[in-house]
Amino acid sequence: MSKQTNHRRIRVEFGNCDPAQIVYFPNYLTWLDQSTHYLFESVGIPWRDLPARWGIQAPLVDVSARFLGPAGWGDELDIESRIDSWGSKSFVVSHRINDAQTGKGLVEGRETRVCVSIDPNIPKRLTACVVPEDIRSAFE
Amino acid sequence: MSKQTNHRRIRVEFGNCDPAQIVYFPNYLTWLDQSTHYLFESVGIPWRDLPARWGIQAPLVDVSARFLGPAGWGDELDIESRIDSWGSKSFVVSHRINDAQTGKGLVEGRETRVCVSIDPNIPKRLTACVVPEDIRSAFE
Amino acid sequence: MSKQTNHRRIRVEFGNCDPAQIVYFPNYLTWLDQSTHYLFESVGIPWRDLPARWGIQAPLVDVSARFLGPAGWGDELDIESRIDSWGSKSFVVSHRINDAQTGKGLVEGRETRVCVSIDPNIPKRLTACVVPEDIRSAFE
Amino acid sequence: MSKQTNHRRIRVEFGNCDPAQIVYFPNYLTWLDQSTHYLFESVGIPWRDLPARWGIQAPLVDVSARFLGPAGWGDELDIESRIDSWGSKSFVVSHRINDAQTGKGLVEGRETRVCVSIDPNIPKRLTACVVPEDIRSAFE
Repeated sequence: MSKQTNHRRIRVEFGNCDPAQIVYFPNYLTWLDQSTHYLFESVGIPWRDLPARWGIQAPLVDVSARFLGPAGWGDELDIESRIDSWGSKSFVVSHRINDAQTGKGLVEGRETRVCVSIDPNIPKRLTACVVPEDIRSAFE
Repeated sequence: MSKQTNHRRIRVEFGNCDPAQIVYFPNYLTWLDQSTHYLFESVGIPWRDLPARWGIQAPLVDVSARFLGPAGWGDELDIESRIDSWGSKSFVVSHRINDAQTGKGLVEGRETRVCVSIDPNIPKRLTACVVPEDIRSAFE
Repeated sequence: MSKQTNHRRIRVEFGNCDPAQIVYFPNYLTWLDQSTHYLFESVGIPWRDLPARWGIQAPLVDVSARFLGPAGWGDELDIESRIDSWGSKSFVVSHRINDAQTGKGLVEGRETRVCVSIDPNIPKRLTACVVPEDIRSAFE
Repeated sequence: MSKQTNHRRIRVEFGNCDPAQIVYFPNYLTWLDQSTHYLFESVGIPWRDLPARWGIQAPLVDVSARFLGPAGWGDELDIESRIDSWGSKSFVVSHRINDAQTGKGLVEGRETRVCVSIDPNIPKRLTACVVPEDIRSAFE
């Protein structure tokens, strides 16, 4: 597991909540996706530079979330993100969402992403490729 | 006002509603946008063919909505859409959302859209252009 | 695995897609949630009647999705949903999203839900409870 | 127009954008709604305390937005919100969204909200009521 972690804060807004008065769960998945972007940015790799600077993208192939407790309107969330493991052509990002006031764990999430190279002449052909070494080392 | 109208049905889902137990209003705006697409499709003009077949797009420049009454989880909505008026380079789409069971009016919406031509060599340069005559006549 | 399956259709709208021109993945999670509601409705159990008729709710405790291939604007999706397994106090719903035209698999999803009883006098106290027998038998 | 304004920052995320590479417009409406909540909070009136402390809610009855220019992934937005005018039982909130780097205007929005009193014994009966004097004076 990478030592490099990133924390970000989310305030739960009225419109993030459902008739059960709690966060409607797909919003958590949106926040996890953003949190991966912020994690990479925290080590100097803006996510949207991946195509231009590395010739790759890193689409999601698997996502999971465990819901440990509810959050509601006005709650402050802390999202802690880190690289859980590196494969040769993929990596796993793990996230933990805690209540920022109480520290109580709310959500555990995991994303598996694959590096794919982009051939500008054949935009639809995505070929899995090795994780660039400088990306990997940026987390060490 | 164009005689050609299009109706579509939406069922309000749990996740469309907020802690006040009613549709969270930005969802209505999403449905209006989709309804404009369906209106054009109903006269043989798929919205996503505008760039390739007519060399244009029709971005939104103004939107408004009046909320006449609430809808909640499980309600069936009828969205009636029509061209309200044509300018030389723009057009107004009006929408009315009614409760499909009771006929009660829930939302009145208006979108103003402008035709812009696309220069594939200069993707960021959008130039307002005259509404293509065959698009206009498709509604008559 | 329950024999009872439910199919529903989704058309991918412009606003469901992201700058990579494909469905932004949290939308799939929203569709899975809705699909569980439609599955229960297909056997005569409207999801929103669970509190009033059975005194229970069935919140999500775990969700996962595997992404097998992308879908884009205008694609028609078929979502097949079924009960994968019953625990004494929980159940697993499995979903498969296919391209409705080509039959190609796009997403495999799993939701684990727990039955909790509601004490109207203590709204925050949720106690796991046995899945009502008539709910279980409705799927057989 | 009230002198009291509130500013907040939004960073446009990947998932806020559509296949045209710009913010999908209903997201702006979500941000306006939140910005009204933050405006009230900035004068000491947390929006979610309206029912308990004042016995009222302030639902939206009319919303409009003009789109002056596009924003895309990674752009920083500044949202400036203020009370535009007070009616006896309603008020108008105006918002201006600017590009935080360039100062360029992107969106002008207006919300009309009505004060309604809540009768806890008849939750569905909403009766328009005079804007509480201390709410109004909090903005002066």
